[in-house]
Order: sequence, then C-alpha cells, then structure tokens
Amino acid sequence: MAKEITSRADDYSQWYNDLVKKSGLADHSAVRGCMVIKPHGYALWENIRDQLDKMFKETGHVNAYFPLFIPKSFLSKEAQHIEGFAKECAVVTHHRLMNAPDGSGLIVDPDAKLEEELIIRPTSETIIWNTYKDWINSYRDLPLLINQWANVVRWEMRTRLFLRTAEFLWQEGHTAHATKQEAIDETIQMLDIYAQFAEEWMAMPVIKGRKTENERFAGAEDTYCIEALMQDGKALQAGTSHFLGQNFAKAFDVKFLTSENKEEYVWATSWGVSTRLIGGLIMTHSDDDGLILPPKLAPLQVVIVPIPKPDPVITEAADKIIKSLKAKGIRVKLDSDDKNRPGFKFAEYEMKGVPVRIGIGRRDLENNQVEIARRDTKEKQSVNLDNAAEFVSDLLDQMQKDIYLKALKYRDDHITRVESFAEFQEVLETKGGFILAHWDGTAETELKIKELTKATIRCIPLDGKEEKGKCIYTGNPSNMRVLFAQAY
Amino acid sequence: MAKEITSRADDYSQWYNDLVKKSGLADHSAVRGCMVIKPHGYALWENIRDQLDKMFKETGHVNAYFPLFIPKSFLSKEAQHIEGFAKECAVVTHHRLMNAPDGSGLIVDPDAKLEEELIIRPTSETIIWNTYKDWINSYRDLPLLINQWANVVRWEMRTRLFLRTAEFLWQEGHTAHATKQEAIDETIQMLDIYAQFAEEWMAMPVIKGRKTENERFAGAEDTYCIEALMQDGKALQAGTSHFLGQNFAKAFDVKFLTSENKEEYVWATSWGVSTRLIGGLIMTHSDDDGLILPPKLAPLQVVIVPIPKPDPVITEAADKIIKSLKAKGIRVKLDSDDKNRPGFKFAEYEMKGVPVRIGIGRRDLENNQVEIARRDTKEKQSVNLDNAAEFVSDLLDQMQKDIYLKALKYRDDHITRVESFAEFQEVLETKGGFILAHWDGTAETELKIKELTKATIRCIPLDGKEEKGKCIYTGNPSNMRVLFAQAY
Repeated sequence: MAKEITSRADDYSQWYNDLVKKSGLADHSAVRGCMVIKPHGYALWENIRDQLDKMFKETGHVNAYFPLFIPKSFLSKEAQHIEGFAKECAVVTHHRLMNAPDGSGLIVDPDAKLEEELIIRPTSETIIWNTYKDWINSYRDLPLLINQWANVVRWEMRTRLFLRTAEFLWQEGHTAHATKQEAIDETIQMLDIYAQFAEEWMAMPVIKGRKTENERFAGAEDTYCIEALMQDGKALQAGTSHFLGQNFAKAFDVKFLTSENKEEYVWATSWGVSTRLIGGLIMTHSDDDGLILPPKLAPLQVVIVPIPKPDPVITEAADKIIKSLKAKGIRVKLDSDDKNRPGFKFAEYEMKGVPVRIGIGRRDLENNQVEIARRDTKEKQSVNLDNAAEFVSDLLDQMQKDIYLKALKYRDDHITRVESFAEFQEVLETKGGFILAHWDGTAETELKIKELTKATIRCIPLDGKEEKGKCIYTGNPSNMRVLFAQAY
Repeated sequence: MAKEITSRADDYSQWYNDLVKKSGLADHSAVRGCMVIKPHGYALWENIRDQLDKMFKETGHVNAYFPLFIPKSFLSKEAQHIEGFAKECAVVTHHRLMNAPDGSGLIVDPDAKLEEELIIRPTSETIIWNTYKDWINSYRDLPLLINQWANVVRWEMRTRLFLRTAEFLWQEGHTAHATKQEAIDETIQMLDIYAQFAEEWMAMPVIKGRKTENERFAGAEDTYCIEALMQDGKALQAGTSHFLGQNFAKAFDVKFLTSENKEEYVWATSWGVSTRLIGGLIMTHSDDDGLILPPKLAPLQVVIVPIPKPDPVITEAADKIIKSLKAKGIRVKLDSDDKNRPGFKFAEYEMKGVPVRIGIGRRDLENNQVEIARRDTKEKQSVNLDNAAEFVSDLLDQMQKDIYLKALKYRDDHITRVESFAEFQEVLETKGGFILAHWDGTAETELKIKELTKATIRCIPLDGKEEKGKCIYTGNPSNMRVLFAQAY
C-alpha cells in the first residue's frame, strides 16, 4: 500500500495529494474545487473542532449560527471588505428550476429571479454585524463573544485538498466590545489560543506575528497570524485573528450607549481557523509511508493486530489491553478481520497514521509479551502484557512531545538570517524555509520582492527585537527584521 | 418579562413566535426565510446533535462531509427526486461580482457565468451517490454507514422559525447495503433511534409509522416517520427514515460484485432530523411564561439566584452546591449580577426554560435551607442545604419523566377514533389532535380529504392492528386505521 504514494523527494506536491487520498482523509468531488471530506478526515476535524470549541468556551465564548446567504448590498458596505471578497464568490440569482419548454431538460426558471442577488458567505462579518445592530444598545450588552462553526465558499481558481478549496469548513469568531483596548486584548487572546492549540495539540510549532498592511484581512485594522513551516520549506498561514477597529460598526451603524450615556461605535474582532489546519498537520509530520498524526488528535490512537490472525487466545489478551486503555480514555480498536495478512494491515495503519500498533502473536503470548510499534520512528519493542496499557499510555504522551520537538528542530533549522538580497535569493533557492531580514516598511518593496522571488512577508514576529539595519532590497533603514517565506 | 409574550389561548401561533424570540432561541434574519440561531438556541441544538451523534456512532455510523453544491444535472438523474426538489431551490449561476461600469455599485459579472448551474443542496442523495460510485466496488466495501451534519436550503415560500426555514441545520444519514433486507433493517433501526431520542431525551412522545405513497420522500420506495402532537392539536413530523431501494444506485450507476461474483445494484437508505426538532420541543412542553425544556437537553439545568443580591455568605453556600452538582455532571451557574432584582431574574430564567432554580437568601441560610423551584409546575420547596445537590439531581430526573408523562397524556387524550366523515370533521374543528380512521388506500381519497379538511394522513402506524372497516370518505373497504391530523 505504501508503495502507492509518490515519495516526498520525487514530488512533494504529488506526495501530498496521494497521501490525502490514499489515507482516506479527503478526495476531489464532482464539483470544481470542492472536496469530499471522508470519514477519517472528518473524524480528525471533529477532534480539532471539539478541542478548539472547548478552549473558546473556557474563555467565555458561545456559539451561534447565522445565514449562509449574504445580500449583495451587505458586501458593499465596507469598502475594503468588498474589494477582498467580490472577486471570487458564488452568486445565487434564482430560486427555482423548471423543465425547458423544448423538453431538453432542467433550466433556470427566468421568472424566479431574485430581486437582490445573494452571495454564499465567504466570511460572515457583514451579515453578523447587520444582526449585532439589533442586539447591541448599551454597554450592558457588551461584550458579545460569539463563534460560529460553518461552511464558507471562496471561488478559488487553483485549489488543493484542505489547503485551498472553494468550499471549506471553519470557525469564525465575531466579538463586539465597548473599548478599543478590550478588542485588541481579545484579538491577542485568540491568537494565543490558536498558537497553543497548534503547538500542544497539533504538535506544530508556529510563529506569532502581525501581518503587513498588504497582507491584512480586507476590512481589518490589524491582522495577527500564526505561521507554520512545512517539510518542503514553505510556510503555511494556519490561523488569523483580526482587530477590526470600528470599521464594521460604522458600515452597519452599530452604536452603543456608554456608562456615561454617550453614544459610541462598537469595537470588533474576528478570528478563524479552517480545515486548512489538516493540510498543515499532514505536511508537518507525515512521511513516505503515510500519515503521522499527533496522538492527541488521532481518530484512532492504538490498533491491535492479531498475528497472523485472530483466535480466542489472542482476542482475550487484546480485550484485556483494550479495557485498560479505554479506562485511560484512549481510543483503541482490535482489527479482527481475518482476510488480510498482518503485513497488509501494518501498511494500512501506517498510511492512516495510527500512532501505536500492538501486535499480538501466539508465540509472544506464551512469553506473556506483545509487540508495540510506534508510527513516527517505526521502532518496535516487546512489552509484558500486564504492562502494555501503561506503556502505551506513556508512549502516546512521549510521541506527542517527540513529533513536536522534531518539527520544532526542523523549523528552527530553517530560520535563516540574511543581510543581502543575493543571500535572500540563494537561501530561497537552496534551503527554503523562513528568512529573517530587514525591510524598509513599504508596500512597494514588499511587492517587488514578491514579484522577484515569490516570497512574501509572512509576519512581523511578535517576539521580534528592535535592531537597526538596512532593507535587503532598497538599502533603506529598518529597525526590525520581518519573516519572509514562500507560502501556501 | 413574561408579560411580553402572547398567551397560547389568545394566539398560539403568535405565542410561538414571541417565545422563540424572547427566550433567545432564534430570530429572523435580513435574508428572507433564513433565521439566526442565537446562542441559547444553538446550545440546545448542540445538545441535541451531540446525543444523536453518540447514538449514530454507537450503531456503527461515521461522519463525513460532502459539497454544498449540487450540479444541476445530478438533480435530474432521479426522476421523482427532481420533481420534489427543483421547485424550491437556490441556484448559483455566477462566480464573481464586479463594479458596474456606470458606477451604480456591484453587479454580477456577466463573464463569470458558470457552465453548469449549481444548486445549494436541499438534501444530498445525488452528490453522495455520485461519490459512492467511486467508493463501492465489491461486497467488501459494504455496508457504508455514513452521516453528515450540514446546512441545507429549500426555498420555502411560507417560513416559520425552526419549523420551516429556507436554510436549516440537520443531519442526513446515507447508507449503502448489499441486500434489500439489510437496507430495510437499517431504515427501521434509524427510525427507532429517532423515536428513542424523541421520547427519552426530548420527552416528546411520538408515533412511528409509514407514510402513504403520496407523502413519501421524492425518490424513496418507503418513508417511515415519527409524528408528534403539539399543544394546539396539530401534528409535527419530527424525523424521517427512507428505504430508497435501488433508485439512487440505478440513477448513478452504483453496482457491486457480490460474494458470488455477480454484479448488482446497491441498496440505499437515507434518514434525517433537523433544527425543526427545536420547534417540536418548544410546542410540546412550553407555557405562557416561557420555555419548558427537558432537563437532559437544557443548556443550563440549574440556576442559583441570590436573594435579594449576592453576598459572601450566599456565594459560599452557592459554591458548595455548585461543586456537588458539577461532580454529578449537572450544568449549573450562579447568577451573581447585582443590578437586577430576584423577581426579574426569576421571570428571565422561566422564559429561558432553566429547569431548576435555587433561591438562596440570608434568612433561609440561618436555618441552613435553600428554596428550590421547578420550572414545569412552578412548585417550590425548602430543602436543607446539605441535601440540596442530591435533591436537585433527583428532581431533574423526576422532571424529565413528568414532562414526558404530561405530554403523553395530552397526546393520548387527543387520539380519537372516528367512524364517519362527519365525526372526522367535527373532531378536527373542536378537539383537534390525531384521528384514527379507516381509509380506502387510494391517493385520490387522501387528497380529497386533505382538500376538504386540511388534514393529511400522518402515517400508517407501525403498531396498528388489522381491523376490517369502511373508509370514512368513500365507504370502500379498509383493513386498517391510519393516523390523520392537521400538521405543521
């Protein structure tokens, strides 16, 4: 089975596509640019969603649901917002089909034209702020801390499974505050939650930073992001948190009475992560044999494979382990299929990224032993049956740490400081990864560098230190390095 | 606050609308026919979803996600299906907006017309069976037991919050089987799960039955349903489970090799419940003061209200109760707001349907007592502080049973057996509810009765007994009573 996917060295992009399909995460659909998220992929998304949802609720957020449709006129109300989203959207113009009079089949009924076209939400700021207008009157109604789990559509021309699809699943937080500072604090809090989730749950190291004006969300005053590094040296924006200022409050006329009885516009944030995270997860850890999933998020954490096939003695030993593992809250199953050989099953579970495999054979059992294999390093070890559950539980914790540290080392080894544009180009062409370099702060230089190298400023790192220097491209003065990379 | 809603006696329909809005469950949106599900309503939906999802998974189902868009040509492939859904759908015809050349604003870009129109899914049989074609080759690939949680759109002309909206949230199961019997068994299993959920979790009694041909799902061989009775004597279809035969397999050419190496079409089922359940929940239990929610699904089960306002001694007693309740897995909060009076808070929590309210006052505490009020009967009782958590836990169980029994009694009191059409009409006009009557089995009679009385055959009850009789309308022979009602 592992032979069926292209190796990373041969063609990284093809490896990714092969892996997503063969591991049962997702597939292309009959609708251009839209994917089918298969059961294994959806189970992974459920684990991501449930943990994020918990973290949102622990910080006082609640969920709600707003319409899929956005009236065309709403999109136009925030000038920058419309520039960002009108160019790639799905437009509903009619509400009925009919049989063609000439019998040629179904056609759009011309009599069922909508008075105003509806856009499938590419993001929901407009419909939500139009609603908040009714919900917010006084400072007592604030803050509103609302999140939505939903599907959104952006009519992308070039799509890739999980990374960029016309329809994708995501969450979008939309909060409303009485003061600017409170909104900024919320923006940063959610960025921190995203970073914590990425590192502790996905085992994916990220750099927190602020976007340049050029790369900001359409309608934001400031966009913060977490940036991860993939194994091919390209960056992936994994989550964004926007301070929206009073832009949407002004566009939708959302004012509130302060405690001093003064009328003011409301302050806003929005923040989101999407099924794109799954793409990041794959490209951070996986190898030529298949997925490597962080134990905390793996749909199935442990699989028990009878060797060479199930029999009552093996099943009894397996049940004992399963009982102990389940008591520890570990997701485990016994593969009791007797049609396929162990070697076939091993390859299949490696492809699917099950973190731990327990092989139980009759001969091992005579010595009261089982064989435990970890997916990341492929190391195997014989373990006493009575200690197996404890061993596996510890091993899962260890693997969660190990794959994070491995990814962190790769990431840190691929942050290069350069002092000249020649060096910048050379690093991009040979080593790839993140590049810390001085930049003169102008959009013009940023775009020129992008045009010449395809590298963009991923962010201005939040932990960056002031440092006098010269822009690598123009030589103009700079007082901080920014983070460049070619990106997905 | 309770004064703000219309009473049921005055105007049942207005009572429902007032209640949905004032209790914070949902509201109309700026988009015709679409609702905003507010945090309280969404929390209720999350509890419904989580429990159903658990029941689906316990019976071997997994979740997946399919595209929002359905190519127009897919809808046409199953002849009955298209008849049922083409007449009320949202049609995407373009993928871009542009600035009007005359500066008048945003218009649809005529150059961005789609080659084939896309329909927003009204239900996903077609896109899913088109996908199953790639997933199913042999009997080893079967059964496929897949469920999807998603939003769907049906362009309804007359909408009501939760009961009938253009966009709604639901789950749709789509399973594929090697044999007819297995598919029928699955159809019935899911019907049973819906009935169990309705009765044990929603405390809403339901009648399980089969739809007449007339009321079948477009494309089904057989549609099974659960039917509930609302407090105004109207029926509500609360869930459906369809045996689809080989209709969709034939439409999308999905065949499999049997274990005898013969090629056969796959057998299918589909089944769904939606946010409509929330409408049913409201209309089964609630009263003129607000929502009455079954404790098992209530987002907040217990609220503690300090009397007259929070102070350290009260908070200490509350914390003790909260700790004990949380240890029992009960959702509880202390209302520590000191701006509003207890009476205001009482009304508010009654409106929102919090099942149990604990009032803690300084004087009560001197006697080591608290006051516990149940939402359904409004009964209050003084309880020793040390026993409060245990008492509340038992009370929640008791209330879950009591509201079910109350609804069951109402429902059973409103099932009337009639022997003539005159009697049928009289019951409909005076008492309402379900009517068990003989019917000659023809669509013609069914439609005539509907035309004359607005009552439809809700179902042919699964537990119905053979009984010779005469059709109330035509006098033709019948061998079983069917269940009529006016319905939502």
